[in-house]
Amino acid sequence: MASNEKDGVSRRDLLGTGLTVATVAGTAGLVTGGTAVMIADPGPAKAGDDDVHNRAVVPPGKLDEYYGFWSGGHSGEVRVLGLPSMRELMRIPVFNRCSASGWGITNESLQIMNEGLTPEGRAFIEASGLKTYQNGDLHHPRPSYTDGAYDGRYVFVNDKANTRVARIRLDVMKCDKMVQVPNAHSIHGLRLQRFPRTGYVFCNGENRAPIPNVGKALDDPKSWRSVFSAIDGDTMKVAWQVVVSGNLDNNDADYKGRYIASTCYNAEEGVTVAEMTASDKDHIVVFNLAGIEQAIKDGKYQEINGVKVLDGTKTSKLGITVYVPVANSPHGCNAAPDGKHLVINGKLSPTVTIFAWDKFDDVFAGKIKGEEAIVGNLEVGLGPLHTTFDGKGNAYTSLFLDSQVVKWNLDEAIRAFKGEKVNPIKQKLDVHYQIGHINATHGETKEADGKWAIALCKFSKDRFINVGPMKPENDQLIDISGDKMVLVHDGPTYAEPHDATIVHKSKLNPLEVWKRDDPFFKFATDWAKKDGVKLEEDNKVIRDGDKVRVYMTAAAPTFGLTDFRVKKGDEVTVFVTNTDDVVDLAHGFTIVDYGIAIEVAPQATASVTFKAVKPGVHYYYCQWFCHALHMEMSGQMLVEEAGV
Amino acid sequence: MASNEKDGVSRRDLLGTGLTVATVAGTAGLVTGGTAVMIADPGPAKAGDDDVHNRAVVPPGKLDEYYGFWSGGHSGEVRVLGLPSMRELMRIPVFNRCSASGWGITNESLQIMNEGLTPEGRAFIEASGLKTYQNGDLHHPRPSYTDGAYDGRYVFVNDKANTRVARIRLDVMKCDKMVQVPNAHSIHGLRLQRFPRTGYVFCNGENRAPIPNVGKALDDPKSWRSVFSAIDGDTMKVAWQVVVSGNLDNNDADYKGRYIASTCYNAEEGVTVAEMTASDKDHIVVFNLAGIEQAIKDGKYQEINGVKVLDGTKTSKLGITVYVPVANSPHGCNAAPDGKHLVINGKLSPTVTIFAWDKFDDVFAGKIKGEEAIVGNLEVGLGPLHTTFDGKGNAYTSLFLDSQVVKWNLDEAIRAFKGEKVNPIKQKLDVHYQIGHINATHGETKEADGKWAIALCKFSKDRFINVGPMKPENDQLIDISGDKMVLVHDGPTYAEPHDATIVHKSKLNPLEVWKRDDPFFKFATDWAKKDGVKLEEDNKVIRDGDKVRVYMTAAAPTFGLTDFRVKKGDEVTVFVTNTDDVVDLAHGFTIVDYGIAIEVAPQATASVTFKAVKPGVHYYYCQWFCHALHMEMSGQMLVEEAGV
Repeated sequence: MASNEKDGVSRRDLLGTGLTVATVAGTAGLVTGGTAVMIADPGPAKAGDDDVHNRAVVPPGKLDEYYGFWSGGHSGEVRVLGLPSMRELMRIPVFNRCSASGWGITNESLQIMNEGLTPEGRAFIEASGLKTYQNGDLHHPRPSYTDGAYDGRYVFVNDKANTRVARIRLDVMKCDKMVQVPNAHSIHGLRLQRFPRTGYVFCNGENRAPIPNVGKALDDPKSWRSVFSAIDGDTMKVAWQVVVSGNLDNNDADYKGRYIASTCYNAEEGVTVAEMTASDKDHIVVFNLAGIEQAIKDGKYQEINGVKVLDGTKTSKLGITVYVPVANSPHGCNAAPDGKHLVINGKLSPTVTIFAWDKFDDVFAGKIKGEEAIVGNLEVGLGPLHTTFDGKGNAYTSLFLDSQVVKWNLDEAIRAFKGEKVNPIKQKLDVHYQIGHINATHGETKEADGKWAIALCKFSKDRFINVGPMKPENDQLIDISGDKMVLVHDGPTYAEPHDATIVHKSKLNPLEVWKRDDPFFKFATDWAKKDGVKLEEDNKVIRDGDKVRVYMTAAAPTFGLTDFRVKKGDEVTVFVTNTDDVVDLAHGFTIVDYGIAIEVAPQATASVTFKAVKPGVHYYYCQWFCHALHMEMSGQMLVEEAGV
Repeated sequence: MASNEKDGVSRRDLLGTGLTVATVAGTAGLVTGGTAVMIADPGPAKAGDDDVHNRAVVPPGKLDEYYGFWSGGHSGEVRVLGLPSMRELMRIPVFNRCSASGWGITNESLQIMNEGLTPEGRAFIEASGLKTYQNGDLHHPRPSYTDGAYDGRYVFVNDKANTRVARIRLDVMKCDKMVQVPNAHSIHGLRLQRFPRTGYVFCNGENRAPIPNVGKALDDPKSWRSVFSAIDGDTMKVAWQVVVSGNLDNNDADYKGRYIASTCYNAEEGVTVAEMTASDKDHIVVFNLAGIEQAIKDGKYQEINGVKVLDGTKTSKLGITVYVPVANSPHGCNAAPDGKHLVINGKLSPTVTIFAWDKFDDVFAGKIKGEEAIVGNLEVGLGPLHTTFDGKGNAYTSLFLDSQVVKWNLDEAIRAFKGEKVNPIKQKLDVHYQIGHINATHGETKEADGKWAIALCKFSKDRFINVGPMKPENDQLIDISGDKMVLVHDGPTYAEPHDATIVHKSKLNPLEVWKRDDPFFKFATDWAKKDGVKLEEDNKVIRDGDKVRVYMTAAAPTFGLTDFRVKKGDEVTVFVTNTDDVVDLAHGFTIVDYGIAIEVAPQATASVTFKAVKPGVHYYYCQWFCHALHMEMSGQMLVEEAGV
């Protein structure tokens, strides 16, 4: 344990149970090759307490320098933040339903949310009557790569709650594809192929469950399995899967397109906390990409629920995986921007373990044991969860139990592991409190620039004025540009941001208004073609039996139709096209008492289908302020009693 | 027009149509008693451009001074912000569904959302299959009063989309009551009884619709009506309604508990924009509270859909309303903290009109005409929408078309109206862009303190790095403590915050953990009593035919049940009780692939009911980070095939 841990006891309170304290104490002693570093607290940063926060202030009229893509956690959304101001610039609904934009209400969003469901998922939604899932648990937003650098095309995200992966188009900042992953149960870790490009989206089915999971083997947990999936980032179809031993946690890919590593907890393959933490060792599993693609080509897969599934368990003979024992319950898995190293974070062990990617060549060739790929093992503090990098050789590890970020030098940690007398630990900074993920500007790319790091803290307790029993999380901004880390901003957030990635603004060039030929409008353009309607011009009501299609334009401050008439029981589809071509001139379309609201940004078309079950006069109005006469931008849907 | 309007033409672009430009020009000339003020631009604030923003910075470890209760607009939620940092501290789901907390999924939230629905609304929800409304359009959060000052009990809010009013308990910052207002169509303006206390919640049914709205009179818009409602803030039942002439917009109450005034647009009672703006006059309607209560007592109401409805139209003989003509399309309606004055904002007229509340005594007594209650009429700029106050005699009016805030002196405006040569206009400050509501710290109470004002701007355009075709709004913070207003912060927000109110932190004292006897848990405690279960201790599965009730505790890092077993087709209710008594130690309960997630804050119980339609092993897990072994806090719902 680090000697500077003055209040170690209280900080360990969160461990609570005797079980856990014993586990931590136990693993600390058991780590092999660990370097017990005793350092003096480097003390507070030199900058005065009163002005350090200025480093993060972006005054009115000035712009942020970075985009942050923030996990919304179980809010199900992605948030776009500006850095360094840490202001939320936009919410992108993904796995949630959004009252404002109609995500989960419009035909366009429901198509995106439902088209990639498994047949089982689709049957479930139909039986529930709810049109689509109501929630998601979004953890790891990851921007797409070309040759190890962000290319500004997409952000990919996972849903732990309902086993999904989704894609966000960065030109319009909207989710355009979603897939529910068959055979897996609960997608947790998600990282991307870095080289030559993304390419694959690698995602971890965390929980071990029967395959297929159809009501059998309920009493045979030993037969349950965790599944590693590769999704084609271009088509958003599952390319292949590998069944593994243990519960997959986080993963990361190298910079050469050869290996993906994943931490695993529960090597015991138990089902209770006690069973899962019984052993003092778990493992990482390393996947050989070329080997997997060859095995698929060679037909060595089993097709399960339409997916090609390979056996990558410990007893597999395919040679596509290797298992390397590490201390109990490793968590974060982070490739360094030097392209050479991988850092595994100990969680229950106070250490980080450093692997050299290249050594996996010899491990897969059977020339060395997995443990021989380890080139460093450094004691960093209690509860190391994730590590990020500054591109200048330093690493920053989040310490959950210590509520600290520890800065350490990668090269010195490797030298210390070889026996050299160096102290790789540079600084420990208190964060508030119980930090999970940490990420630095471009820290997951070969262009890591060492400017800022964000510390995503799970507890905020006393850091903000009291808002009742449910407290915000605390996303703290740390200036890492100097020798010392300096905490510059506390950022409260609702519902756990698990992770975030930060992209310099020069990498993105979003559209200011939609292009009329965007594939987002396909549902509408297809119908318009059938009905002989020009979406940008025509305002028409087309009756087709008991189906009614209403086409209307929106141009501030009027809708193209001042009213339309339907009969009770009709299935009504309304298509609204915003014909304004002015930046920021969004319209909306809400029908009063009908539970309908949709977003129609400049030059966009959106549509909604519903049953006219309530007779009477129902106003529709524009809910996105557009004009001095915005409040007058309304009309009436006149619903006649059937048979009138 | 103010002479300092250098770029008047481009600023007027938003008016777009010839119709509107003509209307504005027309009304400007027609306002009676207007004081055309020509002032020089006061120039930029004295503070240097580089450090004014420091006034709003709250460094790490320091606390905000005020709570801001923010309309989430069509996001349907309320946001709690800290001021002056303008950081979002919490989201309170109200009319939306929340993926994180299970608002709209839990039994507790569905009961709150649905119990106050009209029978028609309930039938609509049942026909749709969606369990409750999917969306809301939340405009005007208003904290409760006792004797004209905030008392920290509740915040009340309206839903323009689905005609609802809701209440938020400030001790726990959760919505606890919701009512759908019968006979009204689309609730817009909402303000509270200030004296002796709240008391009534006054809300405007904006749109004119048939009463009752059941499919008749579709072609007779002249017979449609707008309705003013008073809701009892203690019971959240509709106390009474008054039918009026014209479309109700915003309202406000006096400081003596005698009058409520409301702006009305569309005195023409038209249905298209052209019809609604045909005349150059609209009106305000003033309600006499004692008169209304007496008329109810005297049985002069008609009962419609279970509500006592009074006739307050222009032709009514009840004497409970008076109509005072003002320039076309007035919008904001703001009682000054001096207790004496009411400011009506011109919108299409470049003026504010000042009324003296006391003069309404003589108006209702028939001694003077309504216009004689006017004590001021000041030309302030283009598009005046709302006015707030600093308690030092100054008023701050938002100018939508000019994108400015104008500071003016109330007393001087009244003196100028009498003919005195004073210039009430003190300063005009550019805001960015198209400002709607403005509100100052305690500006709507007798304790207005003149520290900060927030300017809620509808467009942000170039103020933030580009996030695609949908832009954030821009909530700007203005320091109003000195002689000059100073813009100190740009605050991007998603989906239109229509309004916000600001409460000093000394007024609130929220709970840190739930009390076990909170009425929020009634659904669970009632069932637990029937089943003989202690929620805080017992972990039990009770089968009751094809209904299964699962009781479990949550204490970091374990659920009380490591698994439970049900059969396909069972109706399952899970009750989860967080037995941890630690501040900020929230748990959650998510069932994988079952679309279920609920929040269980410290010492809370929450429950969810669903049909077990998917057989197999389904993990449940804690989604609110709670412990180093949080990821291991899970269990399995084992769903057997029926008949197994």
